[in-house]
Amino acid sequence: MGIPDSARKVIDSGRLVHFVTLNANGSPQVSCVWAGTDGDEIVMAHFSEHRKVKNVRRDPRVSLSIETESVNAQGLTEYLVVHGTARIEEGGAAELLQKLAYIYIGPDAGKFPPGDAPMPAGYMTRITPTRFSGVGPWAGTKA
Amino acid sequence: MGIPDSARKVIDSGRLVHFVTLNANGSPQVSCVWAGTDGDEIVMAHFSEHRKVKNVRRDPRVSLSIETESVNAQGLTEYLVVHGTARIEEGGAAELLQKLAYIYIGPDAGKFPPGDAPMPAGYMTRITPTRFSGVGPWAGTKA
Repeated sequence: MGIPDSARKVIDSGRLVHFVTLNANGSPQVSCVWAGTDGDEIVMAHFSEHRKVKNVRRDPRVSLSIETESVNAQGLTEYLVVHGTARIEEGGAAELLQKLAYIYIGPDAGKFPPGDAPMPAGYMTRITPTRFSGVGPWAGTKA
Repeated sequence: MGIPDSARKVIDSGRLVHFVTLNANGSPQVSCVWAGTDGDEIVMAHFSEHRKVKNVRRDPRVSLSIETESVNAQGLTEYLVVHGTARIEEGGAAELLQKLAYIYIGPDAGKFPPGDAPMPAGYMTRITPTRFSGVGPWAGTKA
């Protein structure tokens, strides 16, 4: 099944992604990141080995949520929640961040991050969705 | 210390709250809700005993995140993350939802939910923050 078209549109819309991982003691860790789709995976880039990267290495269970611009018939803002399994891939951060900058900042983003300093290879988080929830046509769909 | 003024302003701004609880198997559960402050607690209302209510009863560790309209000097949208401990209080849902409707829908919200049907007493989630993170002046603050 993969990612339903309605959910893919939200993931690729350039809205912030609220990304949840699990700390070593099992408590939730949240940060907002840029993300996009790559085939049937959701991808994010990181230059540093943030806590979220370490968390995914230890426990691959993640969730993410994204608001939309749509309001449903009951007056509620539609939002997408994705539950899935994540893995860390070494490298590729600069290429992915540049691609996402054109979506999140805009077509005139230019080089991102700005400047000529060499960037570290970094990390990518690749998420395989298992279930879609929230408020919207994707709610209740399994991947 | 309680809730820093900068964070309180975001919580009471009428932006959707991405609320994270922990399922029985330890995986994260996410839904977007309305919330506000009540003294040094963050409060939410629920008419039904949703999974998030059951989750809080079992494991009080929660996180929530809220986007702001502000963009920092690096061009990043500021957002608030609150880590804390939650408890469920019986009743009070209708009063709190009505109060939040004036913020989330607007001063002309009228009766919420609409209609004359009697509403259940419901539940309130009360969160005591322990730590504030994200991108903004509140980041790194302990409650």
